[in-house]
Amino acid sequence: MSDQSDVLAANNAFYEAFATSNLGAMDEQWAREASVVCLHPGWNALHTREEIVASWAGILGNGGGPEIRCEAANAHVHGDMAFVVCNEVLPGATLAATNVFIREQGEWRICHHHAGPIPQPRQEELSRESLN
Amino acid sequence: MSDQSDVLAANNAFYEAFATSNLGAMDEQWAREASVVCLHPGWNALHTREEIVASWAGILGNGGGPEIRCEAANAHVHGDMAFVVCNEVLPGATLAATNVFIREQGEWRICHHHAGPIPQPRQEELSRESLN
Repeated sequence: MSDQSDVLAANNAFYEAFATSNLGAMDEQWAREASVVCLHPGWNALHTREEIVASWAGILGNGGGPEIRCEAANAHVHGDMAFVVCNEVLPGATLAATNVFIREQGEWRICHHHAGPIPQPRQEELSRESLN
Repeated sequence: MSDQSDVLAANNAFYEAFATSNLGAMDEQWAREASVVCLHPGWNALHTREEIVASWAGILGNGGGPEIRCEAANAHVHGDMAFVVCNEVLPGATLAATNVFIREQGEWRICHHHAGPIPQPRQEELSRESLN
């Protein structure tokens, strides 16, 4: 596989762990050697692996994490680092995400996750626009 | 300077262009060779240099862009790619940003910008909490 498809496979593995609320698999995706950062929507940035894995334990719960699907992913690879921009489709909302990956011992692992809302127009604003 | 301080200098130059509404300087910061992406808060991702520079023209206006200050920046460098996570302080709001940089012809240039809100607790929620 090309580096690009390897990175997209790593991105898919991240969302597979997320979607199946598999904390062990999620832990496995995160870089072991590189410095790591995680910016969950509405949180301040987490800067240690311990904090990040603990945050995922809270989010994924006991198999009861959110229903999530990754769409429109594109990968940008430069040497042993890459970033992916994609959409995260949740029931009732779509988020945009940036995921940064690093190649450690031949494996692409995530070292930064940043997800945030793509605001939807409010119904009342849509109604107001249709009146103008 | 170390790679890390070079990357932080490039990140500062990006926010200097932003804060001074200098479209020429903003254009200059963006990568020429690498693929580029930009995720402004509340927008869908822009994937071409032309769209991105045009978006900055709209945001920066005729010298009337938003008052913005970058804080708490930290850089993570791997070879010729790096990412910076920082806060963007605007009047009345703080955003979190991920900026990805690439070294082209010896210069660190931005190839991805993703900014989004860090939601603040609402005053009514704070009041409710203090009652419980």
